[in-house]
Amino acid sequence: MANVDSVTIRVFSLNCWGIRYLSKHCRQRYVMIGDMLCKEEHDIVLLQEVWSEKDYLFLKKKLVCSHPHSHYFKSGVIGSGLAIFSKHRIHDTFLYRYSLNGYPYMANHGDWFGGKAVGMAVLSIGSLTANVYVTHLHAEYCREKDSYLPHRVVQSWELQQFVRHTSAGADVVILGGDLNMHPEDLGNRLLRSYTGLRDSYVETSNFHGCENGLTLLGDNPFISKKELGSFEKGIRIDYILYKGSSKTDICCESMSTTKGSVPGHPFPYSDHEALTAELRLESHAASESGRNKQSEDQESDTEKVAELVDIVTEARTEVKVGLHCAERMRYTATRTAAMGLALLFLELVIAAVPWLALGAEQPFPRTSFYLLAVLCFVILLTTSLLYIFYTMEVKSLQGAEDQMRLALGGLQEKLRGFPLAQPHNAQRKSPEGEEPSAFDPEE
Amino acid sequence: MANVDSVTIRVFSLNCWGIRYLSKHCRQRYVMIGDMLCKEEHDIVLLQEVWSEKDYLFLKKKLVCSHPHSHYFKSGVIGSGLAIFSKHRIHDTFLYRYSLNGYPYMANHGDWFGGKAVGMAVLSIGSLTANVYVTHLHAEYCREKDSYLPHRVVQSWELQQFVRHTSAGADVVILGGDLNMHPEDLGNRLLRSYTGLRDSYVETSNFHGCENGLTLLGDNPFISKKELGSFEKGIRIDYILYKGSSKTDICCESMSTTKGSVPGHPFPYSDHEALTAELRLESHAASESGRNKQSEDQESDTEKVAELVDIVTEARTEVKVGLHCAERMRYTATRTAAMGLALLFLELVIAAVPWLALGAEQPFPRTSFYLLAVLCFVILLTTSLLYIFYTMEVKSLQGAEDQMRLALGGLQEKLRGFPLAQPHNAQRKSPEGEEPSAFDPEE
Repeated sequence: MANVDSVTIRVFSLNCWGIRYLSKHCRQRYVMIGDMLCKEEHDIVLLQEVWSEKDYLFLKKKLVCSHPHSHYFKSGVIGSGLAIFSKHRIHDTFLYRYSLNGYPYMANHGDWFGGKAVGMAVLSIGSLTANVYVTHLHAEYCREKDSYLPHRVVQSWELQQFVRHTSAGADVVILGGDLNMHPEDLGNRLLRSYTGLRDSYVETSNFHGCENGLTLLGDNPFISKKELGSFEKGIRIDYILYKGSSKTDICCESMSTTKGSVPGHPFPYSDHEALTAELRLESHAASESGRNKQSEDQESDTEKVAELVDIVTEARTEVKVGLHCAERMRYTATRTAAMGLALLFLELVIAAVPWLALGAEQPFPRTSFYLLAVLCFVILLTTSLLYIFYTMEVKSLQGAEDQMRLALGGLQEKLRGFPLAQPHNAQRKSPEGEEPSAFDPEE
Repeated sequence: MANVDSVTIRVFSLNCWGIRYLSKHCRQRYVMIGDMLCKEEHDIVLLQEVWSEKDYLFLKKKLVCSHPHSHYFKSGVIGSGLAIFSKHRIHDTFLYRYSLNGYPYMANHGDWFGGKAVGMAVLSIGSLTANVYVTHLHAEYCREKDSYLPHRVVQSWELQQFVRHTSAGADVVILGGDLNMHPEDLGNRLLRSYTGLRDSYVETSNFHGCENGLTLLGDNPFISKKELGSFEKGIRIDYILYKGSSKTDICCESMSTTKGSVPGHPFPYSDHEALTAELRLESHAASESGRNKQSEDQESDTEKVAELVDIVTEARTEVKVGLHCAERMRYTATRTAAMGLALLFLELVIAAVPWLALGAEQPFPRTSFYLLAVLCFVILLTTSLLYIFYTMEVKSLQGAEDQMRLALGGLQEKLRGFPLAQPHNAQRKSPEGEEPSAFDPEE
């Protein structure tokens, strides 16, 4: 396979829903997944929610012949749940932990403990260098009132930054995983527009699988219909994205998803459907086709930059909303701490100056005194921890917002630089300053 | 300055020691720093320990003419303290937070709250793209018994990964900051060897400043001699590192440090000395000189890979030591929690079954009952938090160790691939398996 001019690779992605003792039929499903992967021999297998290292090791053992190279990304308390198996040599790996990932006290949602991240592996496919990314973003528990939206937007922002900045040396970029976002959700648009990654499902003309490419099906036995809300049939939240480089063209020859049930088995592989994309890579001389394309694409480039300005502005607004919430929560924690402190002070005063007590003849009851003191301490401890946590959240949101503002400045500079962009730019500037913040990058 | 073939830039780095209300003469020192930067007009200014955003904004206002472009990196509770000011346009920024950074309960050391990180800024210098990094690693409080060493080694590991993976598209790479490591410390060697970054102080033939390039001087009025231990004169822990690319050569024309006192002022800029490096960038056609060099350098490449194997092996050992400690701490937390739980259980039993109490005629005193219960709850809460924290530490250390093992496998493969490397490799394999772990990458 060395020095190939053209090669086809098969990429697989699945959210395994592998919470030991909690996920239904976990053990049996891993056996099914292992058997299938062993048989199918995909070039690259990207798994999410492999929460237990034991399950990863089980798969590793099972796939030792078909996929001799593998890596398990560790992060957070029980996570990251990300694993990669490959037929091609993995040279290098790198993990980026998202700065925001839910709240530790939302233990029922558990995302915080998963330490969500994006894992990168550098692979050699023949003579080509492929940067392969696997990720899993924060879940969406309630679409109508999604308190995690700012976190997911910041995760998307960091994901696109990570992919963009680490893939400059790669011939091919492949990203797979559970993005927990509908195809046209803000974070998804941000990721695709900024990185230039293309969606296998959209790009291929040869698709087999669930209607509309759904990956979370309404009739999956492990899913309660309630979770899907108004999307009764299901939603598409798992993706395989890709892009080439100046040296390599890439296209999606075919794409498929599992359709719920697995022949010969009483239940599916997971609560998500598995994705398989067949990608054709073709290496060519960088200069020629690249340069021809460049002049052709100038007009569409302008469009793209203008679109990106809109998307980043939208993301920035969302981050600002999150910032407002985080600051309010931090303020609440501070106020509660102050009340706890005041209560403690009052109690000490009452105890120290017995004649202040209402019934002067009987002293402050000892049991009540201790209980009240303990209550004050618990309040102070909890609010201090919350204050620290919210301050970190505020810092992360502010940091993302600063970066977005800087990026917007650069994009608008670029727009002004495009000869074709002038009218567009002028037009965007005029409508009664509806989004002035996008135009003051150095504010 | 556009499309230059050769350009000289001046890079400045300083740890500002800017803890409001705690650092001595903080306000006055920022005024001095601002005046000096305004006058000196360095191309790139990299600052650390700018803990307060107000101080950053003060500098930003002051430097608006000399350094119109700037960015402040936010992370952690009060950090990251990193700031960059530039004469050249900053196009893009990205922040990587180190996965390990001390312990939150070591509030007197405070590093955890700083959210140590590496900040990246993409700059245009004429026609060249420069990736500029600014960082600050965990402090070393006691060299003889440095419990933070594994954390600092993991930080160095992540720093080299971040620089390596994000700089593929850059013509020039510049890294400045307070690494909190002596020149030949493990983390420093790891960083330099893996990334190919060169040390301005070592490379230049034109140095002005403190003897041996020291940046933390024994006679700095803000430093207690005790901190420096046996290094009475001082230590060198601040650096400006750089490297070029196949398209650009870079060399350090001169380098200087401040020498403690500042003329006309009663105290220095900070407890660290400031560094200035004058770097000459020369762009050239990539192919010719690059290819010639390639064949020449094969022998030295082998040496380098062999050296890297040694360094990564050493780092891996250090991480394993840290892992052992973290696991022991987690075990202690678990055991203490179990004891707390047992105590609580015992208390409840005694209270519920009065005849079990020693003095059967007098019941369990209420005050003691409540106090004991509270003690149990405090123990349980604290140990739970510690358990979570240590588990995250264990995961991060394991993750780094996994990546190091993978990297070692790749490096050894490379060594075996070098025709010149065979004897070296064989020699390394023989000595009674003193470090066998380095040779079982897939163990």
